[in-house]
Amino acid sequence: MVPIINLPATGAEARIAARNNTYTTSTSGIANTFLQANLIVLPSRFASDFRLLCLRNPVPCPLLAESARVGCFDELKSWLPGIEDSRIAAGIDIRRDAPRYMVYEDGELKKFQCADIVEEWSEDHVAFLIGCSYSFENALTAAGLPPRHAVMGRNVPMYRTRLPLCPAGIFTGATYVVSMRMYKRSEVETVRDVTRPYVATHGEPIAWGWEAVKELGIEDIHVPEWGDAPLTLEGKHLSEEDKDMVPVFWGCGVTPQEAVMKAKLPGVVLGHAPGHMIVVDVREWEVLEEKNPN
Amino acid sequence: MVPIINLPATGAEARIAARNNTYTTSTSGIANTFLQANLIVLPSRFASDFRLLCLRNPVPCPLLAESARVGCFDELKSWLPGIEDSRIAAGIDIRRDAPRYMVYEDGELKKFQCADIVEEWSEDHVAFLIGCSYSFENALTAAGLPPRHAVMGRNVPMYRTRLPLCPAGIFTGATYVVSMRMYKRSEVETVRDVTRPYVATHGEPIAWGWEAVKELGIEDIHVPEWGDAPLTLEGKHLSEEDKDMVPVFWGCGVTPQEAVMKAKLPGVVLGHAPGHMIVVDVREWEVLEEKNPN
Repeated sequence: MVPIINLPATGAEARIAARNNTYTTSTSGIANTFLQANLIVLPSRFASDFRLLCLRNPVPCPLLAESARVGCFDELKSWLPGIEDSRIAAGIDIRRDAPRYMVYEDGELKKFQCADIVEEWSEDHVAFLIGCSYSFENALTAAGLPPRHAVMGRNVPMYRTRLPLCPAGIFTGATYVVSMRMYKRSEVETVRDVTRPYVATHGEPIAWGWEAVKELGIEDIHVPEWGDAPLTLEGKHLSEEDKDMVPVFWGCGVTPQEAVMKAKLPGVVLGHAPGHMIVVDVREWEVLEEKNPN
Repeated sequence: MVPIINLPATGAEARIAARNNTYTTSTSGIANTFLQANLIVLPSRFASDFRLLCLRNPVPCPLLAESARVGCFDELKSWLPGIEDSRIAAGIDIRRDAPRYMVYEDGELKKFQCADIVEEWSEDHVAFLIGCSYSFENALTAAGLPPRHAVMGRNVPMYRTRLPLCPAGIFTGATYVVSMRMYKRSEVETVRDVTRPYVATHGEPIAWGWEAVKELGIEDIHVPEWGDAPLTLEGKHLSEEDKDMVPVFWGCGVTPQEAVMKAKLPGVVLGHAPGHMIVVDVREWEVLEEKNPN
């Protein structure tokens, strides 16, 4: 008999399961309709520049929330218009509520997929939560356009590009990271329409078509920097000769992590392990479309 | 005797003078410390995509306010966190309060520098006010770094680039327009610091140095698409061989107008004449730094 595994169904359940180390794997597909978030934790003197980097580049770096105060790991300040601070993730412990973490010191990886960052967290740290594309993938599936990597049980391919971010203070020279999903050329406008309202989680694609590969400066579409290589449904390499299928590129939550690494910040920088997100209490439908801030 | 001309000293004075046609020229240098705004007026069916274009590209397209309702020319909805709707521009008449206007029909220029748009405004129009770089120029001058074009009584040079905007709905294929100011290489970090807080008016530069000219895809630095050609203080052409002086590029408020023109929208599109801005009631110091929306 196959044991029945109770997957976390809500943001609160996902955080408690991660805190208790009863859930330690990728959060892809769990707690459906609850927003998932990328985590970046920085020494406080870099917080102002990083906040500005996100606000100047909201498509790859959609800022959801940050520590309520310097050193604070259990209260958040919301950056989502209309969503109060306390509504983001009640009772959160930023140091323990992602299933797995990464630890960097002076720009070098020190710990890989560790269970928590209780020891590394200091009174000088500030945490930032950034939107994640898992949300609009649910919407694509619901619209009859499931991303191929999900259908095949693979990870989404992600690529470095040469498209520059708008710099902010210490964060200069950074470029977009993009995620890629293959669609029929005739489906692209529907794919754009379906993902457009997801403004807090990258929104509509930034580029599409084979010509975009060159324009973005992606060296080899078959060799993504993160995630799994894209394949046809028959398990073969993609071919540009298949003119009907085209790559579609979205801003990716790995972008701010790359910007932080590129800035070679001194001191201890912390983050979630890719794919192992912090799940929050906010539902997808609460952050559709841009809300007026007043 | 030279007649004493009373230049408008506040946003309200500037709007009334423009409305009465007693002020009909460029608003550069008037109503010091009051924010000036680019104006774009679109048929309502394009408003949602245009709003999203601005929110996805806040550096070249910083959204300050929009019509309170479709067809409304005398009330605004604020997009500035913490600034109430009624505080943007009390008693505004969007159709008459810029010194000069432009009228486009089906993507073609129909009227150049006309006095108002009372006839052209319809019940289906929506107006958008976008931040302008005049604000941070005051700050640069106050910091002892006056832009050279201002010192020489010339207009700032502006260039088309190949740097893509994040697309939004009908607005695809658009690229950044940038403004350029020359500075010593040793001054660039101070220039970045001085302009960084001006988040509602393009903020810090997006690129700098001679290498940026090529990276942005600017064809000829001596031939800007808008404004006056950049010159040395001796009135000569710039030279890349002068390694000490470098071009510094900012996102430019002409960007959203270019995006609208590129989209070839059907119907009547209205805007201010370049340089002839709508001056509002908000002071520069009220919009320094990004404010949390909640």
